[in-house]
Amino acid sequence: MTSRKHSPPARSRRAPRRQRQTPPPGQSDARWLYGVHAVLAALANPNRRCHRLLVAPDTARRLGDRLASLTSPDSSLGAEGESASRGEIARFLPAGAVHQGLALEVEPLPGADLKTACSPTPEGANRVVVLDGVTDPQNVGAIMRSAAAFGVRALVMTRRHAPPVTGALAKAASGALESVALVRVNNLARSLDALAELGYWRLGLDVAATTPLETFTPGPALALVLGAEDTGLRRLTAGRCDELVQLPIAPLVQSLNVSHAAAIALYELARKPLGD
Amino acid sequence: MTSRKHSPPARSRRAPRRQRQTPPPGQSDARWLYGVHAVLAALANPNRRCHRLLVAPDTARRLGDRLASLTSPDSSLGAEGESASRGEIARFLPAGAVHQGLALEVEPLPGADLKTACSPTPEGANRVVVLDGVTDPQNVGAIMRSAAAFGVRALVMTRRHAPPVTGALAKAASGALESVALVRVNNLARSLDALAELGYWRLGLDVAATTPLETFTPGPALALVLGAEDTGLRRLTAGRCDELVQLPIAPLVQSLNVSHAAAIALYELARKPLGD
Repeated sequence: MTSRKHSPPARSRRAPRRQRQTPPPGQSDARWLYGVHAVLAALANPNRRCHRLLVAPDTARRLGDRLASLTSPDSSLGAEGESASRGEIARFLPAGAVHQGLALEVEPLPGADLKTACSPTPEGANRVVVLDGVTDPQNVGAIMRSAAAFGVRALVMTRRHAPPVTGALAKAASGALESVALVRVNNLARSLDALAELGYWRLGLDVAATTPLETFTPGPALALVLGAEDTGLRRLTAGRCDELVQLPIAPLVQSLNVSHAAAIALYELARKPLGD
Repeated sequence: MTSRKHSPPARSRRAPRRQRQTPPPGQSDARWLYGVHAVLAALANPNRRCHRLLVAPDTARRLGDRLASLTSPDSSLGAEGESASRGEIARFLPAGAVHQGLALEVEPLPGADLKTACSPTPEGANRVVVLDGVTDPQNVGAIMRSAAAFGVRALVMTRRHAPPVTGALAKAASGALESVALVRVNNLARSLDALAELGYWRLGLDVAATTPLETFTPGPALALVLGAEDTGLRRLTAGRCDELVQLPIAPLVQSLNVSHAAAIALYELARKPLGD
């Protein structure tokens, strides 16, 4: 991209913060992703509809061919990015967004259906993560990032009491939004039943459990169930789990952050040999 | 604390945001901690000098005796907290701080010296974490929290290119600032030499390493060395490590967030039996 000519940014310098042009029909749900990993992953995802790419000149230079190969006329964007200063990019984003000189206006990915996203495949490990009331978008994004790193197929969470997919969540996910299916459900208990019917063993992480995670042997289909930042698993959710395990942490420390507990559990489960 | 009478907040409702009274002599370095875990841990730490505690009425009710027992006349605060609305508390804190109805003005903890904080004790595992250019205060705070959970004694980082201890860092540390020694050094390479002289095996986490973490057997004194969010370990730092290991993550995922990588590594090292 270094040697390419960028078209000038379409917005006037005096455009008020976050003012948006009237979106074309069908684009009303468009939103901005930002940050290098989140934007490059979205550009590389053939299922992602991308509208506009804003690139700071120094970011274009730094990324070079990594960016240029994703912005060819036959890419999902179908066009080169527009050169824009960091300040101009910031005007489209929430205050304080760490955009690293890159912002991409996209359509949200189509919602995934529980059965389609989670039906176990015969080969390898089927892993999904279920979130019960995790409300912090940074935590949800960070859990998606770890999920991608440890081969998780889908993240299941409720439509209510769970954060929307914002640029901040996508930034924390660092590209994982494009590879881990996000399944929104109305009723978590019913979805846990459905996962059991699909053959999943539902493993809840709970500070009050007595079995340590490391003694657990995962089968070929496993749903890791994690509770809210402060209150942990709700009783109804814990009751739907086939087994509850805990992480071995120092007695004086009440808990780990939920995204760090998730990372540890996914690591531990990924490295174990599969049971029956 | 529920039934106690709180003195009214000293600030006028019209006080401009974050305006502070001229600090009394010796308090010029005072700062605000906020959030339930960070504040309760600071109140419980006999080495922490505390000046003012602001408590929202609903938080006081919710915490009840947990807070009251820490604000007796013979506590480090030496007084009850002052009742204040959430809005009044927010005026003392950075914009957007999630204070949960609790803020505490404190003196910073005295700086810890590398040798004093890290000299190995004969019993049990001696674990320290060394950070090389980790600049995000949320990440440093989160690493402290995991460090406390897995029995780490000290966190070593440079004076420059590392974040100051702010309320945001303390919030992410969730009380761990009070139990894990924070050692600031001028020269990281020299400090890694000093750790080797104290008997530490210096284990670097590096995405380019070929040895997986799980094959490593830790000895009784181990320093886990972690690099910057984007660029990883600097060459000079990696060269000072006795061994480099990597986490087994999916090939398409470039890296984990440094605080999540730290949590996994500390978990893995804590659960292994000690080697010689």
